[in-house]
Amino acid sequence: MARTALPAHDVADLTLAPDGELRIDWAAGQMPVLAQIQARFAAERPLEGIRVAACLHVTAETANLVRTLAAGGATVALCSANPLSAQDDVAAALVLEDHVEVRARRGEDVDTYVAHVLALLDTSDGPGPQITLDDGADLLVTAHARGGAVLDGLIGGTEETTTGLVRLRRLQEEGTLRCPVLAVNEARTERALNDRHGTGQSALDGIVRASNVLLAGHTVVVVGYGWAGLGVAERARGAGAAVIVCEVDPLRALEARMAGYEVMPALEAAARGDVFITVTGSRRVLHGEHFSRMKDGALLANAGHFDVELDLGELEALATGGHRAVRPLVEEYRLADGRRINLLAHGRVVNLAAAEGHPAAVMDVSFALQALSVEQLVVHRGDLAPGVHSVPPGVDREVGRLKLAALGVRIDEPTAEQQDYRQSWA
Amino acid sequence: MARTALPAHDVADLTLAPDGELRIDWAAGQMPVLAQIQARFAAERPLEGIRVAACLHVTAETANLVRTLAAGGATVALCSANPLSAQDDVAAALVLEDHVEVRARRGEDVDTYVAHVLALLDTSDGPGPQITLDDGADLLVTAHARGGAVLDGLIGGTEETTTGLVRLRRLQEEGTLRCPVLAVNEARTERALNDRHGTGQSALDGIVRASNVLLAGHTVVVVGYGWAGLGVAERARGAGAAVIVCEVDPLRALEARMAGYEVMPALEAAARGDVFITVTGSRRVLHGEHFSRMKDGALLANAGHFDVELDLGELEALATGGHRAVRPLVEEYRLADGRRINLLAHGRVVNLAAAEGHPAAVMDVSFALQALSVEQLVVHRGDLAPGVHSVPPGVDREVGRLKLAALGVRIDEPTAEQQDYRQSWA
Amino acid sequence: MARTALPAHDVADLTLAPDGELRIDWAAGQMPVLAQIQARFAAERPLEGIRVAACLHVTAETANLVRTLAAGGATVALCSANPLSAQDDVAAALVLEDHVEVRARRGEDVDTYVAHVLALLDTSDGPGPQITLDDGADLLVTAHARGGAVLDGLIGGTEETTTGLVRLRRLQEEGTLRCPVLAVNEARTERALNDRHGTGQSALDGIVRASNVLLAGHTVVVVGYGWAGLGVAERARGAGAAVIVCEVDPLRALEARMAGYEVMPALEAAARGDVFITVTGSRRVLHGEHFSRMKDGALLANAGHFDVELDLGELEALATGGHRAVRPLVEEYRLADGRRINLLAHGRVVNLAAAEGHPAAVMDVSFALQALSVEQLVVHRGDLAPGVHSVPPGVDREVGRLKLAALGVRIDEPTAEQQDYRQSWA
Amino acid sequence: MARTALPAHDVADLTLAPDGELRIDWAAGQMPVLAQIQARFAAERPLEGIRVAACLHVTAETANLVRTLAAGGATVALCSANPLSAQDDVAAALVLEDHVEVRARRGEDVDTYVAHVLALLDTSDGPGPQITLDDGADLLVTAHARGGAVLDGLIGGTEETTTGLVRLRRLQEEGTLRCPVLAVNEARTERALNDRHGTGQSALDGIVRASNVLLAGHTVVVVGYGWAGLGVAERARGAGAAVIVCEVDPLRALEARMAGYEVMPALEAAARGDVFITVTGSRRVLHGEHFSRMKDGALLANAGHFDVELDLGELEALATGGHRAVRPLVEEYRLADGRRINLLAHGRVVNLAAAEGHPAAVMDVSFALQALSVEQLVVHRGDLAPGVHSVPPGVDREVGRLKLAALGVRIDEPTAEQQDYRQSWA
Repeated sequence: MARTALPAHDVADLTLAPDGELRIDWAAGQMPVLAQIQARFAAERPLEGIRVAACLHVTAETANLVRTLAAGGATVALCSANPLSAQDDVAAALVLEDHVEVRARRGEDVDTYVAHVLALLDTSDGPGPQITLDDGADLLVTAHARGGAVLDGLIGGTEETTTGLVRLRRLQEEGTLRCPVLAVNEARTERALNDRHGTGQSALDGIVRASNVLLAGHTVVVVGYGWAGLGVAERARGAGAAVIVCEVDPLRALEARMAGYEVMPALEAAARGDVFITVTGSRRVLHGEHFSRMKDGALLANAGHFDVELDLGELEALATGGHRAVRPLVEEYRLADGRRINLLAHGRVVNLAAAEGHPAAVMDVSFALQALSVEQLVVHRGDLAPGVHSVPPGVDREVGRLKLAALGVRIDEPTAEQQDYRQSWA
Repeated sequence: MARTALPAHDVADLTLAPDGELRIDWAAGQMPVLAQIQARFAAERPLEGIRVAACLHVTAETANLVRTLAAGGATVALCSANPLSAQDDVAAALVLEDHVEVRARRGEDVDTYVAHVLALLDTSDGPGPQITLDDGADLLVTAHARGGAVLDGLIGGTEETTTGLVRLRRLQEEGTLRCPVLAVNEARTERALNDRHGTGQSALDGIVRASNVLLAGHTVVVVGYGWAGLGVAERARGAGAAVIVCEVDPLRALEARMAGYEVMPALEAAARGDVFITVTGSRRVLHGEHFSRMKDGALLANAGHFDVELDLGELEALATGGHRAVRPLVEEYRLADGRRINLLAHGRVVNLAAAEGHPAAVMDVSFALQALSVEQLVVHRGDLAPGVHSVPPGVDREVGRLKLAALGVRIDEPTAEQQDYRQSWA
Repeated sequence: MARTALPAHDVADLTLAPDGELRIDWAAGQMPVLAQIQARFAAERPLEGIRVAACLHVTAETANLVRTLAAGGATVALCSANPLSAQDDVAAALVLEDHVEVRARRGEDVDTYVAHVLALLDTSDGPGPQITLDDGADLLVTAHARGGAVLDGLIGGTEETTTGLVRLRRLQEEGTLRCPVLAVNEARTERALNDRHGTGQSALDGIVRASNVLLAGHTVVVVGYGWAGLGVAERARGAGAAVIVCEVDPLRALEARMAGYEVMPALEAAARGDVFITVTGSRRVLHGEHFSRMKDGALLANAGHFDVELDLGELEALATGGHRAVRPLVEEYRLADGRRINLLAHGRVVNLAAAEGHPAAVMDVSFALQALSVEQLVVHRGDLAPGVHSVPPGVDREVGRLKLAALGVRIDEPTAEQQDYRQSWA
Repeated sequence: MARTALPAHDVADLTLAPDGELRIDWAAGQMPVLAQIQARFAAERPLEGIRVAACLHVTAETANLVRTLAAGGATVALCSANPLSAQDDVAAALVLEDHVEVRARRGEDVDTYVAHVLALLDTSDGPGPQITLDDGADLLVTAHARGGAVLDGLIGGTEETTTGLVRLRRLQEEGTLRCPVLAVNEARTERALNDRHGTGQSALDGIVRASNVLLAGHTVVVVGYGWAGLGVAERARGAGAAVIVCEVDPLRALEARMAGYEVMPALEAAARGDVFITVTGSRRVLHGEHFSRMKDGALLANAGHFDVELDLGELEALATGGHRAVRPLVEEYRLADGRRINLLAHGRVVNLAAAEGHPAAVMDVSFALQALSVEQLVVHRGDLAPGVHSVPPGVDREVGRLKLAALGVRIDEPTAEQQDYRQSWA
């Protein structure tokens, strides 16, 4: 590009850009749904002049979303939703090649993270964002906490996680949510891929990469049976493990049992598991009482968004024998009686911290939904009341159709006769 | 019982009552959730004096629902939702032991069926029903077609099938639905058991009983991937079959593909399948064009509610070599070139026509939902607007809890801290 | 046929022959491998004048084997290997249509059974059999117990079950086995279908037909993890059950565990199971100590060849509350504390006693192996030493090829280069 | 240790030893079976003074085998069976901590590799090895090619791979094999873990690490259905893929089909797959004709021992658009029409080249078998004829028992009555 100056940015090393470009290019090849949308956006420019702030995992896949929005005419600024997931080379490429304002460094501390979020919302020397893209609701929650000009300028936002939606709905219940938010991760195409298949594969992938454990023959305890937990459980079973599910919701617990899993209280499971994976969106679901019952060599991992599902303070307190790193992402805690408990990836979301997060094919669908949701917010600006809204069914179906085409799958259309039949009741 | 006279009835043979009683008793042992509700109903009498008309499959499980409603104080009249599923011995036992008005004969013709439905709705010599229980909406649709006194007396109804809900929602869209209807089969506990696990197991059970086919090594084509089709597909795969899914809805098609099935247009699948199962709720989903491509020996079965999913007229027209019964529920059609196509159970819903329908453990949940839904309609009479409503979440959760208990499964409660966490957003 | 007199026979009712003929004809359509062999036998007549005695399940599939051997020139006499599996209509058809000496009645008592076996081996008024076909070794073991002329005339035998081979190898170890026996059920094609897929599907089919239990959500305990137990376990898991395996052999136990099953001692499993299936080939694997720990409503079934795996005497002794038939093939035993244990099919092999035994597609392979094994015994008469022998690999591969063709599956041939590569070591 | 001088060695960097030590220690914690044997060896010293040469993957797990043999009294020399799998830090630790003669560098070229093998067999300045441990038969085949003193000194060897056994049996058929070889990878415990579960998990792990592909929803073609191929196929299905199997052996092809896979010729599969994995032990199983039919973006991986299963020469010839590295272990080849084919790990065995090879839990069993097999060779020296022998069943069962114990699984013992029953035939 021929632009004369780089935008404001805070990235680790601009010289990594070529590696990032290669990575973005590879991901683009895995994201055929987004590519089709990008082509249409480039032709139609539905986001012309729109300012977008995105707090997402800074990865090659996100870079392709940024490029799609930019192709539609938007100006995008990006920070990282997770200090462990940022890919520094991708960040560099976006700054250098696309002139995007990126504020993200792998491993940045909390203060830096907060500063990055605030910088994206800053209106002191110019207008703030009109559209936000969130993965955990930090942008929107922060904007509402700050209030003022940034809120006035907002058209709306999108949210990618269950955790984020819980926070935003709490704002809505309190009557303080000021703009419409589209719940991308409740779209059916998202359900069909992201939580179930994306987290299912990548959480186990992270565990295997970190520990090289053989899943077959071992007992995997999955704590939480939402869509992501369901996916982790079915992948663990598919890998030959005996799977135990722990869940506090009776309907989900029943669904898990009907799917053939053992279901039991977590304290009972604690003594039986070889590998433990939390994926609840809640906190302290495994703590000292559980750790103290575990077998020697047990592996602990968290696949939930925040690193609060395992009580690491209680783990450390129990480990009177100390702890030490035994592999790059494995910390071994030694209990008083000599038993060892192995914590993976410091209890951070294991598919991002120990693997590459969701495969590009999953992000393809998520980000196609994101791109089309941003378009909906812009096209229907002013029409949507403040509050959390479903992604419009038409968007969902369009993404489904594009994805099937990308997989090379053809299906039938209902005949006119069949459509009539469904309409009739005589 | 010491009652002096039997109610009006039309059943095949009252002397079969002892066999029916044994069957009802056995089913009762498989229905621990309903049993707990029955005990409470007997103590609380929430349905005292309520008149209930039920058009359901007349089976041992339904008899236990009837007894539960009666224990709550209701007077129940029953006809059969399907001419092939009525168990004559159960019908006899309900008349003789419970003094229930039963109008159902296995194999009754259409005219008899219509007469039975009308008799239950008749108000010429007394008040009509206040509550209807439907499995296909025939009672409510007929009541609306007739209009008049029967509609005036209705408090509301429940519906057990997707097909029935399609019909009722069509009424609602036309503005003619006059009472509230609870959509039992859209309850989550129902989803977790009935469509997926009940139909999944029993449809294949019916096919195996009818044909004794080995599923392993063969290709099973499942047409339709709603909850029931999903269940049939996973059970077929679990039985060792290679499974192909055909589906017209792109979202469902995508879900099927992500679950690892081959997905393709039905005409393409026609040439590959050894066993075909329709479960769409639509009509003519397999017809002459499909039949003419099938392999010699292909098995055809329908697991949808109505026998319109296979076009039998076109099958007969193709079968220039004639057809003959080769096993009790298998009719062999011979095409011009000598290929044979085997139709199971005359294209009627195969899990009822060739097996025993849903296992009692499934009906336990459905009928627990029915019983509690009837209670809701009575307790909240007048509060619910006309239209199709969801079963209240509290009912769903109560059934889930009772069912887990019945399975001997214990789960954790969320801690106060976890409940706070979920509420908070800071 | 135009023969003037029927052979000696003892069947229930010759007038059932037309039903039997229909059933045999249907099975023929399911047995394309045997059909090809039958066609060759008819042309080549490799068994011209050979006398064959068969003690097998008298079913429509066996009838097709009998016809294949007869097509090859053999004279066949048949009795039933199991009193519950004989199909009286098939027996009638074989007598009336094929002029085969059949001695089998469904439900015949032990004395009648023994008389039938002895009649087939009788040499008092003519020569005895030259070839035996066994399913449990009763013909050959009885022949060796009697000794004399019948042994002198034997060319050899085939055996279809693990149980039978145990008995024959015991004879061999004692040095008293006088003829070669081909171990049909150790052939690889047999393994690939019969024990694993045939027993796997049909044992669960029998349990569901007898009880209408829903397998999903329940715990199925499989006692024994040979090929048949492995098949039952994988089908139970495929049906949505949680599966526990009990096994005394450490290697098999390890294989079960690596396949993701829970593995534990039977006493521990006794308290956890909802459904118990024995398939060990051993005796008293579940007895009073186990029964007394079981849950109310537990289902007991045996899928092993002999009805000795469940100790029914101890069950009866425990059931101080008596027992009664609650469904045609379910006997409910009531323990002192009110718990009920439901015995299916009287503890007899459940896939035969409560369902139709192996699907025809399975028997197709078994009986193709039988037919070719009989041919091998005749062609190589005098070449094989007394003792249990493997089915020749060439026979196995021929059956594999014919079966793949029947399934419509094509495969590659190794290239000359690949064959060379496998041969070379440089 | 206090030894004064290091042994002869050729490793990359001795300063890496601390990292290697940590890795070996971690692996030790995953290898409880080997640990028990090591403890006994240390006490009994069954290998006192025996010289062992091992050509194995130089990994942390192998280091534990080396330590076990050393604990038994042996002197061990080690080279690497694969240039890509050697862990340089482990090699360093073995030299520095254990004073083992290690000759292995990650990425060493063929000449270096050959020199390392020859060095281990060298007898010019001392006696050669008495026992060989092979993973591909290079030590033994080379020893036989050289002949002379090295052969005279051999007590026997062990072999870990199917490929190696093919080579050794070829020697045996030619009559030139001079010592007994125990076929470790044909032991049942090995089958239960190594090929099926070890390769099954790690081959897919390697593919996901290299490419981050989402397996769910995609079509995986597995070429070869031996134990390793079976394992890869079941893990791919367990990961949500649609799986196609290609196999030239009709019995294996039938087994695959009965397990529910699609089975077809490789040319037909070429057009359908998204991911291709060869695991045949043969050569050129996928070549130009296949590549030219593949979809844009197809992934190619080899999980067979040697990198000859994919014809890379023909791939390069087809790629008139050139090729380039798009990720560290992914090389993208561009065909004339723009389609891209992605080769993973240069076609080398993907579970070693792109992941960490078999999990320690798998190697635990393999190496327990190795250790006990070496002991058997030494204890029974002179008793075993030259040729390939099975691992004695007692060794297999002992490993099975130790492994179950390590997994925390208890099982029943057969009762005396059951043992009698199995023995009897009356």
